[in-house]
Amino acid sequence: MRLDQLGEWGLIDRLRAFAAKEGCGFSDDCAVIEAGDGCRLLVTTDALIGGVHFDPVLMSWRDIGYRALAASLSDLASSGASGDLRYVVALGAPGDFAAEDVLEIYAGMAELGAATGAGLVGGDTVRSALVFISITAFAQVDRPLLRGGAGRGERVYVSGMLGEAAAGLGRLRRGEGPAAAQRFLRPMPRVALGKALADLGAGACVDVSDGLFPELQAICKASGVGMVIDEDALPLAPGVPTDEALRYAYGGGEDFELVFTAGSGFDIAAATAAGGVSLRQIGEVADQAQGLLVRRGGRLQPLVARGYQHFSGGEG
Amino acid sequence: MRLDQLGEWGLIDRLRAFAAKEGCGFSDDCAVIEAGDGCRLLVTTDALIGGVHFDPVLMSWRDIGYRALAASLSDLASSGASGDLRYVVALGAPGDFAAEDVLEIYAGMAELGAATGAGLVGGDTVRSALVFISITAFAQVDRPLLRGGAGRGERVYVSGMLGEAAAGLGRLRRGEGPAAAQRFLRPMPRVALGKALADLGAGACVDVSDGLFPELQAICKASGVGMVIDEDALPLAPGVPTDEALRYAYGGGEDFELVFTAGSGFDIAAATAAGGVSLRQIGEVADQAQGLLVRRGGRLQPLVARGYQHFSGGEG
Repeated sequence: MRLDQLGEWGLIDRLRAFAAKEGCGFSDDCAVIEAGDGCRLLVTTDALIGGVHFDPVLMSWRDIGYRALAASLSDLASSGASGDLRYVVALGAPGDFAAEDVLEIYAGMAELGAATGAGLVGGDTVRSALVFISITAFAQVDRPLLRGGAGRGERVYVSGMLGEAAAGLGRLRRGEGPAAAQRFLRPMPRVALGKALADLGAGACVDVSDGLFPELQAICKASGVGMVIDEDALPLAPGVPTDEALRYAYGGGEDFELVFTAGSGFDIAAATAAGGVSLRQIGEVADQAQGLLVRRGGRLQPLVARGYQHFSGGEG
Repeated sequence: MRLDQLGEWGLIDRLRAFAAKEGCGFSDDCAVIEAGDGCRLLVTTDALIGGVHFDPVLMSWRDIGYRALAASLSDLASSGASGDLRYVVALGAPGDFAAEDVLEIYAGMAELGAATGAGLVGGDTVRSALVFISITAFAQVDRPLLRGGAGRGERVYVSGMLGEAAAGLGRLRRGEGPAAAQRFLRPMPRVALGKALADLGAGACVDVSDGLFPELQAICKASGVGMVIDEDALPLAPGVPTDEALRYAYGGGEDFELVFTAGSGFDIAAATAAGGVSLRQIGEVADQAQGLLVRRGGRLQPLVARGYQHFSGGEG
């Protein structure tokens, strides 16, 4: 069977057979590893391909480096990383690629590294007909936040605003220039918030890398719950028509905001202060039998939207 | 400047500016990370590209998966890994690539994982016009073995036989079939030996991934020493004319044997027993001013050979 017929999740299901028992890196943003002597680590690996995951015409190589690392650090953040963030990079480029552009990719990563305290600790650079950036990031964790951690009776929250990255990408594509697209070009992984959520006892947590819809679906599936989302409560990108903003929020990628669940005793003020970002309740956890519902103008209906499927289509 | 003009080592020199201070992953086989709570980790990342680092016509996808992981585990071994070995995989393949072949790549890795106790803990699979396999492997380490650990007065040792992988590749290319190329297709990373060398107090250690010559050069440069190598003492691939065997040993890649230095009190018998492989003294550490010399038929002369340069040429 062709990979694009099997699809990303079909493939992941089959790859699980090869995984070590402790590995949850195929279903969560990070794997959680017991590294001995009471040391528990988060590990995440992601590959970005030129022309598939980034467009060197639309963005500078520095932008591309920054955003590549942002995706990895966001996975650590959503899993509740408590210790220093570290990363290694495997980079492929053609022999006639400009060395200066490789350095710009690393400079973009270093820019985000300086802002988050993430340190580059090693790498590999290889000749390749196309440009790719493969980042593995890791950090110690005290209490991992997982997709499967949502419980009945919890509330659903989201940080910051949704769809701003997608809105920024739209502006960039319309030629409005980088200044109008900073939330796309310079997203900030919610590292401090993720740590606070772990410390304060949040339930499930994921980062919004493929749009809100698939992330909510993933929490519901992994936790064995349903959800009711209040569409009116969604913190949408400003300056965008509501229809478009909703489409960006549900299906637009790479906001790197966190969506999480927490019980009624959760100290949302402390999380807001520690995370340095606004938090908004957008719904409640419900029974699995209810599925994933949205309250839209007072009416409940099933939530349906499309995200990004790596092998079976383009961007959603 | 084009990458192929700058060369791999020229690029690595420039990338060092972006590395965290603790990161030695740009000069050693692994980075050594203090992950908190007294937990010290080795991390290594490597990318392999279809058509550059492996040839799907010459090898099965299972072979390719096995060998990809072998390279990473060998880096952990040469750095003295003491704890469980873990790895994550980022894999790129075209949409029309057969899913069965992806599973074969993972099956090859799992075959070596079962033999070494290395566990797959996560991964990412992406659509890419060419096939690549990017592996990041890590393990706890008590006492890291580094390239820069060689000291004056030490002896130089190598495990197993050199050039057998290159000889096997030669046979494979001549159409002799996989049975004649097992040392190339199924190399065994020296995990038990690396741990024993760390425990027993060896000096410098590297794995022979690019041929003996560049590895010896790397130890000399990093340690600030010279070396005298006895060519007659080199454990060469059997059944190959001496000239060819020497060329394979010095410049042929991916034997994954360990070359290391150790003082006169080093318990070579204990290392041999723990490592489960023969160890041969091939020379002595000398003053840096002497450089890297070889004793050939009783005469000392500078050792010169070519390895593999990722950006500036093909296989050496």
